[in-house]
Amino acid sequence: MLNIGVIGCGAIGRDHIRRLTDIVPGCQVVACADYFEEAAIKVAAQYEGMKAYKTGEELITAPEVQAIVITSSDPSHAGYVLEALKAGKQVFCEKPLAQSAADCEKIIAAETAHGKRLVQVGFMRHYDRGYAEMKRIIDSGELGAPLMVHACHRNVSQPDGFQTEMGVSNVAIHELDICRWLLNDEYKSGQVLKVRQSACSTKGYDNPQIVLLETQSGARIDVEVQVADAYGYDIQCQVVCEKGTVNLPDPYAVVKRSNATRSFPILTDWKDRFIEAYDIELTHWVKTLEEKGEPDGPSAWDGYAACVAADTLNRSRGTNQFLPIEMMDKPALYK
Amino acid sequence: MLNIGVIGCGAIGRDHIRRLTDIVPGCQVVACADYFEEAAIKVAAQYEGMKAYKTGEELITAPEVQAIVITSSDPSHAGYVLEALKAGKQVFCEKPLAQSAADCEKIIAAETAHGKRLVQVGFMRHYDRGYAEMKRIIDSGELGAPLMVHACHRNVSQPDGFQTEMGVSNVAIHELDICRWLLNDEYKSGQVLKVRQSACSTKGYDNPQIVLLETQSGARIDVEVQVADAYGYDIQCQVVCEKGTVNLPDPYAVVKRSNATRSFPILTDWKDRFIEAYDIELTHWVKTLEEKGEPDGPSAWDGYAACVAADTLNRSRGTNQFLPIEMMDKPALYK
Amino acid sequence: MLNIGVIGCGAIGRDHIRRLTDIVPGCQVVACADYFEEAAIKVAAQYEGMKAYKTGEELITAPEVQAIVITSSDPSHAGYVLEALKAGKQVFCEKPLAQSAADCEKIIAAETAHGKRLVQVGFMRHYDRGYAEMKRIIDSGELGAPLMVHACHRNVSQPDGFQTEMGVSNVAIHELDICRWLLNDEYKSGQVLKVRQSACSTKGYDNPQIVLLETQSGARIDVEVQVADAYGYDIQCQVVCEKGTVNLPDPYAVVKRSNATRSFPILTDWKDRFIEAYDIELTHWVKTLEEKGEPDGPSAWDGYAACVAADTLNRSRGTNQFLPIEMMDKPALYK
Amino acid sequence: MLNIGVIGCGAIGRDHIRRLTDIVPGCQVVACADYFEEAAIKVAAQYEGMKAYKTGEELITAPEVQAIVITSSDPSHAGYVLEALKAGKQVFCEKPLAQSAADCEKIIAAETAHGKRLVQVGFMRHYDRGYAEMKRIIDSGELGAPLMVHACHRNVSQPDGFQTEMGVSNVAIHELDICRWLLNDEYKSGQVLKVRQSACSTKGYDNPQIVLLETQSGARIDVEVQVADAYGYDIQCQVVCEKGTVNLPDPYAVVKRSNATRSFPILTDWKDRFIEAYDIELTHWVKTLEEKGEPDGPSAWDGYAACVAADTLNRSRGTNQFLPIEMMDKPALYK
Repeated sequence: MLNIGVIGCGAIGRDHIRRLTDIVPGCQVVACADYFEEAAIKVAAQYEGMKAYKTGEELITAPEVQAIVITSSDPSHAGYVLEALKAGKQVFCEKPLAQSAADCEKIIAAETAHGKRLVQVGFMRHYDRGYAEMKRIIDSGELGAPLMVHACHRNVSQPDGFQTEMGVSNVAIHELDICRWLLNDEYKSGQVLKVRQSACSTKGYDNPQIVLLETQSGARIDVEVQVADAYGYDIQCQVVCEKGTVNLPDPYAVVKRSNATRSFPILTDWKDRFIEAYDIELTHWVKTLEEKGEPDGPSAWDGYAACVAADTLNRSRGTNQFLPIEMMDKPALYK
Repeated sequence: MLNIGVIGCGAIGRDHIRRLTDIVPGCQVVACADYFEEAAIKVAAQYEGMKAYKTGEELITAPEVQAIVITSSDPSHAGYVLEALKAGKQVFCEKPLAQSAADCEKIIAAETAHGKRLVQVGFMRHYDRGYAEMKRIIDSGELGAPLMVHACHRNVSQPDGFQTEMGVSNVAIHELDICRWLLNDEYKSGQVLKVRQSACSTKGYDNPQIVLLETQSGARIDVEVQVADAYGYDIQCQVVCEKGTVNLPDPYAVVKRSNATRSFPILTDWKDRFIEAYDIELTHWVKTLEEKGEPDGPSAWDGYAACVAADTLNRSRGTNQFLPIEMMDKPALYK
Repeated sequence: MLNIGVIGCGAIGRDHIRRLTDIVPGCQVVACADYFEEAAIKVAAQYEGMKAYKTGEELITAPEVQAIVITSSDPSHAGYVLEALKAGKQVFCEKPLAQSAADCEKIIAAETAHGKRLVQVGFMRHYDRGYAEMKRIIDSGELGAPLMVHACHRNVSQPDGFQTEMGVSNVAIHELDICRWLLNDEYKSGQVLKVRQSACSTKGYDNPQIVLLETQSGARIDVEVQVADAYGYDIQCQVVCEKGTVNLPDPYAVVKRSNATRSFPILTDWKDRFIEAYDIELTHWVKTLEEKGEPDGPSAWDGYAACVAADTLNRSRGTNQFLPIEMMDKPALYK
Repeated sequence: MLNIGVIGCGAIGRDHIRRLTDIVPGCQVVACADYFEEAAIKVAAQYEGMKAYKTGEELITAPEVQAIVITSSDPSHAGYVLEALKAGKQVFCEKPLAQSAADCEKIIAAETAHGKRLVQVGFMRHYDRGYAEMKRIIDSGELGAPLMVHACHRNVSQPDGFQTEMGVSNVAIHELDICRWLLNDEYKSGQVLKVRQSACSTKGYDNPQIVLLETQSGARIDVEVQVADAYGYDIQCQVVCEKGTVNLPDPYAVVKRSNATRSFPILTDWKDRFIEAYDIELTHWVKTLEEKGEPDGPSAWDGYAACVAADTLNRSRGTNQFLPIEMMDKPALYK
């Protein structure tokens, strides 16, 4: 029975607490913390045996907490991960791992110094049965080498305070991760294209945007990023190989015929799209910790690679150029 | 240039006149007639060189008319076909060929006496690329023998005056024809099942109904018949063979994503569903008349077979029994 | 932590043991038994703290076993359920609950005597997100009253020893259950139709078969049953309501384009089709036992209703008649 | 009855001759010519009343020829069009109108000097019901302004002699045309991206390529161009608007279930993909000539716009830059 502490009691934090309590076997959430202490107290009150801590740091060092789940605001991720590494505790960090490549490098330095993996990053799409099957087909070689990826990531709307850069560093970050994974490849260069501004986006950030990437092997990737598409949460991905293509499935959804229309519902809440993947992801994390003592899911290196790409892409905006995406050498720990 | 006379200037008649004028090469409509003479006069006025006749009989015997197209009301079909046969002229008759098996037998007797085919029945689905491909696959044997057909025929609504029996004899008649054709088989028995009455049908006829058929080789067919489905004109057909199935495609239609829905339009007007099939059907009819001197499309025998099945099914209603579907011997002309 | 004993260590039994161990929180499998004792011993050896019992009866009365899961051969189900009821223990029984209506009535008598629910039947489709969404839409009334169900249940092949009756009592049993549930209705009459025999079925049983049912409210149901379709495990279900239809989705599956074909894989192993439903089903069962002390999933009454329908259908074979489906009065416990 | 002469008796030429003879009403093909005279003689021998001319120029000036259809090799298009304009005859020219912007400008000068439209370019996709419906939806404004187009144009393979530039000027040319039309917009800039070379393309040209375009209003277009995709002729197009998207349908095709796969055939021959569009296109061309005396389909201006874009794109290759797409002022004739 793994004792877990969760830092961050917002929507995704509460969702993971429910998941770790009701769905994932072999673990229990014994502690929580939040920037707003009352939020943590409120959540802790709903579960038997869960203690609310004043700060994430206190939670991390609490003796009863064996592993940490970080679901706090993006800017706080790196700091908590470094604290967890200092405490030598396993840590599952929601994406992004950090806000800058420099912070990722600090995490990598700390983890490699430790000598074994302690960090898993919450790129849950690796656990989606659709992406996993795409990867299996690509890796099998039956379709030849992968040449291109056409993807889109569309959200209904974003809150005030959202910024243009976040379209890449917080939204497209999932595609930056999943494309590397699907193609077994690293990025060589990338750029962001400005698109005619959508009237559905009136909050001061560019929307939509298009992300273009070239991989080391010359494969090309285009990702449409919309954070105010006005119609749904819609994730599309097609990998084009030499002899054929594979597509991410649309979600399992009832077909309805009515009103002169045959229709399939599109989700509007991102939390529902990969709900099964989240379940599998955390179940797998807890299980591998128990069985192997370290995680085998997305690593700090994967978090770093996505972060470097996002940084480069955000610097490219307005340059009308593909900028080189430059990474440190890959430590042996991640090979 | 084949000179055609059209009897019946209602919706389908006007549609065929337009088609024969604008789409079908090698022919022209030189005459029309209608039960309401003014309707014919009005239509004739819209086309150069088209003459309106007082009656269908006059049109049939008019010397400039080389071939007849019958699109008048269902009860008048058989009479006009017999007149055309008497005049020794080619005749294309919209389905149904007649209202009773007895009338079909008279037509068959007249045509076989004539010694060559003069009649084609307007079962346009034979010319639909979807059904044609289904037949090609079934006939190829790649899926083994056909075992079952699951079909449905759904209309949005029917006018006042529609009767329960017409659900079989005028609506499901298309399935009665197409299933024989797809399976290369004749019917052995059939029955109609009463279904919970739909509140969308308030006009005094049973709706929906289910038609069950057994073929000579033991294949089973079920056809859902709805004439007030409230949502669209929807034709579905699946043939189940020993090693797989084939389905009629949904129409070629743009996919739209909006309002949390991925949707395909469903047609509401039956005239649009097989519009390309109608074009091909009449083009093929005119062309075979020119090239071979007789038609090779659906014959009076096919019209008879569908009519016998419809008669039997309508007699079965309420008996809770499969009734035998009994046909005359097939004349050599139709083999 | 609920201590569970599993009777029956075949494919589904081992699958449920894995599921209860790895996926379902709040429980552990502490005991197992099988008709072949060695099978149980072999399974128990793979899990820490699991004891193999000589017989199901011993397992049921073992003091450390708090709840029973029955996955043994169909004929043994009813006996084990009655033993569990005698012991006053919660029991989850895979479908079918019993081989005859008489046995189901004994179970109902024992459970109603006990005064609270102890039995849940393994109709896992209630927990499939597709069926659940269909039910939600039907129950919402947005499409009007349900009028018809068109369903098919197709298996790739069946082992030697399979019998014609099992096509209804063991295969279509899922549809007999799910249609009642989707329509909130009981059956009035039914019959089985013989179909042209498939050459893919050479093992002495009729295949395919068609099940026809009429409900109390007059809705009609047709279920194609194939147990040797030669192409895949394929479950289809369309409910036709007054103003539209809903269809069970095809499984979440990657689209591939290659070799002049756009294709979706079809599963061949039934265990994969409702794998998520099984997970949800048992998770829900364990959770409701903990929270409410009794199950709220498919009841002995549901098992009985499906069994009565199956019995009647099997008696109808060859009669060419709809036979009445007659049930006992529903005890208050199940209302 | 419009008397037509066809220049070019290759695959598309013979296909159009058949179409104009068998499908399109109101016209007849009275003359043909080909670079290889024997090809023309062979074709003419198959049709009654068709004369083979030694050269295209002779055919153009032949008195019995009222309108010209050009289906000869791409480099010869512009010359024949200019001859036809000199003769003051209507001309339907397969795409591309010319190999260079300069040649298009000569055609535009000749046609504007003539003072009325004589040229229609064979961009048949305007007549495809899928694209037409997409345009109707976009123009209706129901989805807001168009922001992006994601398209792909994939061919199975190309003959020896094919060159990298032709991937844009002869293949993607259809997308260069249709995107302008769908968006009611002109291009501002564009570039071609080199992609990892496919092993399926061993004939010395780059494959695949990606075309990127920006329109005057800021909309972004990406077109994947493959001329050796090894699996089929596959045309995809999605227009993303502010409030939703529309997709070109996949062709009307029978669904087959067999061998653990649900599959839809993909065409391999491009001539089959838009077969109905070709029929409608030429039928419409003949009809508008008869009714209005001039065509209303894709104009020399449209041919020019696509050509300028193609030229610019081909110049951009390897520059890693978006190059401006610069066009002459639009003459009043085309407004």
